[in-house]
Amino acid sequence: MSSSTVITNIATLITNDPSLSDTDPLGTVRNAAVVLEGDRVAWTGEASKAPATDNRVDAGGRAVIPGFVDSHSHLVFAGDRTEEFHARMSGRPYGAGGIRTTVAATRAATDAELEANLTRYLREALRQGTTTFETKSGYGLTVEDEARALRIAAAHTDEVTFLGAHVVPPEFAEDPAAYVALVTGEMLDACAPHARWIDVFCEKGAFDGDQARAILTAGRARGLRPRVHANQLTYGPGVQLAVELDAASADHCTHLTDADVDALAQGGTVATLLPGAEFSTRAQWPDARRLLDAGATVALSTDCNPGSSFTSSMPFCLALAVRDMGMTPDEALWSATAGGARALRRDDVGRLAPGAYADLAVLDAPSHVHLAYRPGVPLVTEVWHRGVRVN
Amino acid sequence: MSSSTVITNIATLITNDPSLSDTDPLGTVRNAAVVLEGDRVAWTGEASKAPATDNRVDAGGRAVIPGFVDSHSHLVFAGDRTEEFHARMSGRPYGAGGIRTTVAATRAATDAELEANLTRYLREALRQGTTTFETKSGYGLTVEDEARALRIAAAHTDEVTFLGAHVVPPEFAEDPAAYVALVTGEMLDACAPHARWIDVFCEKGAFDGDQARAILTAGRARGLRPRVHANQLTYGPGVQLAVELDAASADHCTHLTDADVDALAQGGTVATLLPGAEFSTRAQWPDARRLLDAGATVALSTDCNPGSSFTSSMPFCLALAVRDMGMTPDEALWSATAGGARALRRDDVGRLAPGAYADLAVLDAPSHVHLAYRPGVPLVTEVWHRGVRVN
Ligand SMILES: [Zn+2]
Ligand SMILES: [Zn+2]
Repeated sequence: MSSSTVITNIATLITNDPSLSDTDPLGTVRNAAVVLEGDRVAWTGEASKAPATDNRVDAGGRAVIPGFVDSHSHLVFAGDRTEEFHARMSGRPYGAGGIRTTVAATRAATDAELEANLTRYLREALRQGTTTFETKSGYGLTVEDEARALRIAAAHTDEVTFLGAHVVPPEFAEDPAAYVALVTGEMLDACAPHARWIDVFCEKGAFDGDQARAILTAGRARGLRPRVHANQLTYGPGVQLAVELDAASADHCTHLTDADVDALAQGGTVATLLPGAEFSTRAQWPDARRLLDAGATVALSTDCNPGSSFTSSMPFCLALAVRDMGMTPDEALWSATAGGARALRRDDVGRLAPGAYADLAVLDAPSHVHLAYRPGVPLVTEVWHRGVRVN
Repeated sequence: MSSSTVITNIATLITNDPSLSDTDPLGTVRNAAVVLEGDRVAWTGEASKAPATDNRVDAGGRAVIPGFVDSHSHLVFAGDRTEEFHARMSGRPYGAGGIRTTVAATRAATDAELEANLTRYLREALRQGTTTFETKSGYGLTVEDEARALRIAAAHTDEVTFLGAHVVPPEFAEDPAAYVALVTGEMLDACAPHARWIDVFCEKGAFDGDQARAILTAGRARGLRPRVHANQLTYGPGVQLAVELDAASADHCTHLTDADVDALAQGGTVATLLPGAEFSTRAQWPDARRLLDAGATVALSTDCNPGSSFTSSMPFCLALAVRDMGMTPDEALWSATAGGARALRRDDVGRLAPGAYADLAVLDAPSHVHLAYRPGVPLVTEVWHRGVRVN
């Protein structure tokens, strides 16, 4: 039998366990303890009622939250776009750049370089409390480069997304239909075994609604589940297509019509908001309040990538969501944990209830509110992943 | 003789040493090294030209910057205002609150409690690269409580500011003139020996221009140098008064007329911008670009305090300044280091030039641009203070 550990003297424990309260979706317990057994949560409740365990850890009156679930990142890449960012933020023109810079660097990199880069950012995210992460291909854009990106990613996370339809690569600029045929044909054949999800950047300048539908449908026929980059830069068909295809998530959701909001509220698709992208490109904020008031499910993620959002910090995204997107501190915490889990159709992460994975973060603060109250401060002091303290 | 250490293999070294370049105020050196001798910088330059030293540290291709100079914080306090923040950010009314909550808690605290709290936040700031910090009284507002706040602060930093004129305390609500008399009389007598600076919150609802002038002038007569909380919430006389009295800094500068900007550009007073306050109160951003274009000297600081800006993170403030205040990444780095030093009239900190203190931060990134490019990510991996590695 695996050994049991109680983490006790927790001032505020966020469980996201709705069975604990009719009114508090965070399932908050004050003066709490959590018992871990092996890689799972075995018990949560008031510290005074905790069962006997083999080991005991004192949280020192700090807060404990479920580990963050970052359901949207792009971490299989090589190269650097510091100069592009520097120019953009200094008001200087910058001719080259964009996703294609990263595509060229990624294609030129060795497997070992890509893996070293990926693990670097995964470790960085883990130290900041992210215990579940999705990541995507999308900087290879050839059959071989997409498949190797997914193979490398799959060695580090279960949540791997095939995003061959990130942009049309330069060599297909004159014939985008041929690229769609490649993505839905030979590339899909090579990639499907290594991925759980299929994704499309459905946007003016990338893939239109018909192309996106063809790609997602083809992926679904190969056992991949859909998710969509939708309505980031402009209004468009992405969100409604995502809901129609029962995609787990429509990501970005910056430009939404009332019909888009209604579709998200009625359907089973999570609206995943990525404030790091709006921060780093000085774009308008997605309106989380509007989505929440309509009854949609909202997740928060980083979109970590070297071009438009090079943050791996879920606490930073959460603070932006509270400041600029109309979320309360409680809603933002839920969206960054349980919301991310919903966007991955998972119920074994993003909450601290018996049976869920023992993935949690200890904050150097008495409550989760401090993640927004103390923006920018690295408050995550301990991280437990699958029942093991990793930081 | 004290031992010498070279930190070498630095991809980007920011010296803020204007003697190194006619065109680059950051005095950037690529592939650089810095030599420390005792508590001072002895040499900077290209790594291949570094002199022989006793010890050698490899920076691994990372960036090295001068330690941040946080010239504005309020860290002698007790109590917590999480509930007030939580209510504000959740759209719920919150009756009590404000500075007076902190004043009551601070008066009730023991010296040991205040000192433990102060050192906690100073350590937190140090881990994030802040090697020089100013801090203030202002939550005591009695002769004894102000003097003890300054005594406690002076045990931890040279940059201590008497801010008896933070607000008029409740017991003087009917007779603010009597409070000004106290601040300029008995309280000043008790406080002057423990402080370097005198400060006033010159604002509607706090102290008007005449009161501020009387307080700053009285302080100056006792050897304290002026600095001013000016033009934060409304237009007002604070900035021009600061320049007239040759204050080292006018802090906040959120609401400025053209005449205010001109005064700052012509005078010797630094405009210290505190974006953490605007972030946490959802207020309009100060316009750094306008000040810089006019020729004013700009500093960035945290304003760390439990009410309006509970961040100790200079990197976070720098990222906000780039995103929302029109500063380039280079300008923001300068303002958070050399700018802060100017706002404290110091030339021995905020730069890495021979003779300056060996206060520096090593970033987990190849350049300082990443502080804005990678917002929220705790990039400061090593901190050296007075020639000693402290983190
Ligand atoms: Zn994305
Ligand atoms: Zn202040």
